[in-house]
Amino acid sequence: MKIAALSSATGASVATLKYYLREGLLHPGVATAVNQADYDDSHVRRVRLVRALVDLGHLSIAEVASVVAAVDDVDVPIHDAFGIAQDAMVPDRPRDDDRHASARSLVDALVARHDLRVRPDAEARNMLADALVHMAEFGLVDLASPAADGSAQFDAYAELFKQWADHEIAFVPDGDRSEMVEYTVVGTLVVEAAMSAIRRLALEDASERRFGDSGRR
Amino acid sequence: MKIAALSSATGASVATLKYYLREGLLHPGVATAVNQADYDDSHVRRVRLVRALVDLGHLSIAEVASVVAAVDDVDVPIHDAFGIAQDAMVPDRPRDDDRHASARSLVDALVARHDLRVRPDAEARNMLADALVHMAEFGLVDLASPAADGSAQFDAYAELFKQWADHEIAFVPDGDRSEMVEYTVVGTLVVEAAMSAIRRLALEDASERRFGDSGRR
Repeated sequence: MKIAALSSATGASVATLKYYLREGLLHPGVATAVNQADYDDSHVRRVRLVRALVDLGHLSIAEVASVVAAVDDVDVPIHDAFGIAQDAMVPDRPRDDDRHASARSLVDALVARHDLRVRPDAEARNMLADALVHMAEFGLVDLASPAADGSAQFDAYAELFKQWADHEIAFVPDGDRSEMVEYTVVGTLVVEAAMSAIRRLALEDASERRFGDSGRR
Repeated sequence: MKIAALSSATGASVATLKYYLREGLLHPGVATAVNQADYDDSHVRRVRLVRALVDLGHLSIAEVASVVAAVDDVDVPIHDAFGIAQDAMVPDRPRDDDRHASARSLVDALVARHDLRVRPDAEARNMLADALVHMAEFGLVDLASPAADGSAQFDAYAELFKQWADHEIAFVPDGDRSEMVEYTVVGTLVVEAAMSAIRRLALEDASERRFGDSGRR
């Protein structure tokens, strides 16, 4: 297909597609004439991946580029490419204070308690620690004695997600390597966006019942 | 406290604090001398709110300003301020195609099915529809017959979050109005970041078992 068709297939403008090509986020098509190239389904999938990372993952173009590089490097085994992509999806942040260290040790304990086989330096550990630090600032959790409060819910999440993750990873179709990695990356982001949205709907409902017209004091 | 103490209490640099003051995200302190002002706990809380919105919610400064305005407007009832803040936390996006309309009708059906009292124009509905459109692009969900696939999990999420939301909203301390709104806003974002991080840890574990050293084919 020509670039105009790729644009209609993906909803990305031709200008955006040219930008992705210039930045190396999208592999070049097969040249068919001067200034004209032919694109295929792999381009459609790649554009969707890039858009999911930008729209849902809030990744910068440089971060998207590192995910794409891991997806494309056939020497990187699937599981490792997934790890690289997962790490790129966690924003860089200064994390050198004591609170982060306390939060991080709670995270590591949670991972061990639920027997999760996760790399010791996986960025998702820092992502959870960041959230714990913010929660502690608002008194939602006590980093010194987490069991006493809201973070007990985390064990419930861990049990639940562990159960569901097997199902979700089993769902990844056995196929083309880059397709499989794209699938896990997009699956990570879209399901968490969906989950967050459903929780927000439930929170609005609960707020309505406590503070809204039906609960107004 | 002086601005330097506010900086240590919050971890935000003095330059950042001055920027927040200039942009109206932070209310001025009480002037004690030329070029010197006194700040209190309300400033500490506000800085933490702004940082949570920027760091975890990925909000732009203009979006943070609209949340802050809703928090500060005492004429806006708590539940309505929460709604304004919730809407600001969903990115603006073009949503005029047929796929969004199909996804949106699935969302509205989910809200009705679970009897969630949510404003008809709540942006969280669009947030969930956006995620469904991305999922459909990757074949993770079929917008025409959602029951046949992954989105059945959404009913499980809705049941679960409805159950938990009551508990979470009950947790909001009865106190100062702006403190209560801040609490619900930060609670929305930090818990979803934590939840997402825990799910990512579980996904890495599941990927390790299917594709990693213990499962390498």
